[in-house]
Amino acid sequence: MPENDGKSKGLLIVYTGDGKGKTTAALGMTIRAVGYGWKVAVIQFIKGSWKYGEMDGIKKLAPNVELDIMGEGFVGIIDDDKPMEQHREAAKKAYDLALEKMTSGKYDLVILDELNVALTLGLISFDELKELVSQKPQKLHLVITGRGAKNWLIEQADLVTEMKEVKHPYQKGILAQKGVDY
Amino acid sequence: MPENDGKSKGLLIVYTGDGKGKTTAALGMTIRAVGYGWKVAVIQFIKGSWKYGEMDGIKKLAPNVELDIMGEGFVGIIDDDKPMEQHREAAKKAYDLALEKMTSGKYDLVILDELNVALTLGLISFDELKELVSQKPQKLHLVITGRGAKNWLIEQADLVTEMKEVKHPYQKGILAQKGVDY
Repeated sequence: MPENDGKSKGLLIVYTGDGKGKTTAALGMTIRAVGYGWKVAVIQFIKGSWKYGEMDGIKKLAPNVELDIMGEGFVGIIDDDKPMEQHREAAKKAYDLALEKMTSGKYDLVILDELNVALTLGLISFDELKELVSQKPQKLHLVITGRGAKNWLIEQADLVTEMKEVKHPYQKGILAQKGVDY
Repeated sequence: MPENDGKSKGLLIVYTGDGKGKTTAALGMTIRAVGYGWKVAVIQFIKGSWKYGEMDGIKKLAPNVELDIMGEGFVGIIDDDKPMEQHREAAKKAYDLALEKMTSGKYDLVILDELNVALTLGLISFDELKELVSQKPQKLHLVITGRGAKNWLIEQADLVTEMKEVKHPYQKGILAQKGVDY
């Protein structure tokens, strides 16, 4: 068997489940990728799912890592008063950008953060998901995060981890923590 | 209830389970922490569990993040010919350093990577684990990773995520991938 140089096959990786650590693990992968001198594109499908700590921290990994914050914020949650059409348009822009970056040949790793949630909310269609996955170049590592990954996606993926919530601080009555929850 | 500034209570966080993403999620937390200007100490209990990508990548987050690679490599696995005593001494050094850094007041976040594995291998005793946890200062966020977390630790923890392996590339006959597996 030939030695694998890590570029011969790019993986489709899914982080899903209701536990914490999905986006955080994707973020951790950017550290590793940057260590190899790879170029990374991170596209956030749900604006507001990251807070300032992550966004400021990832800037330290520039220029190797590019972050695009797309989407119009949480949908149907927390004082959302934007019309659904506006969320759909924002998701379409995120989708177009994702496809463009994935197929540009410029990146070794592309992370589509919270894409599963955008799907669940109906902002991205199942056909669009299938199109994105089918357009993945052979050498590209593609990471898709978010709870509620479709069975179809799990079947397509090379590596799937379900982050299972065993215990959350809310159960102990502790408020959301800076640096941990946001 | 007073507003939580994120420093009033430091959490004990456990990433466990057989799936990928435990250390990677801990790494991702360092990005977030650095974004807040926090000081982070990462202590690796099992040398060789990280590869060059992660180690080179995390250097980009210096000086906020310090990495100490302790341990004497995989124990009882992959051509290990070191006597057990040597592994235990190395683990003791990692333990001493962990305790020192945790209680120094210099760090906001301390990550004890693969401590659960060091425990399972008998390099760290259960009493030592209890001592480490009991010495956690109130404000410090402490993250412990590794499969096979003890029930006692899960009971003590504020936040526990089990990374569950749903699918791994080996199942598809793909070799370990640079940037993903190491």
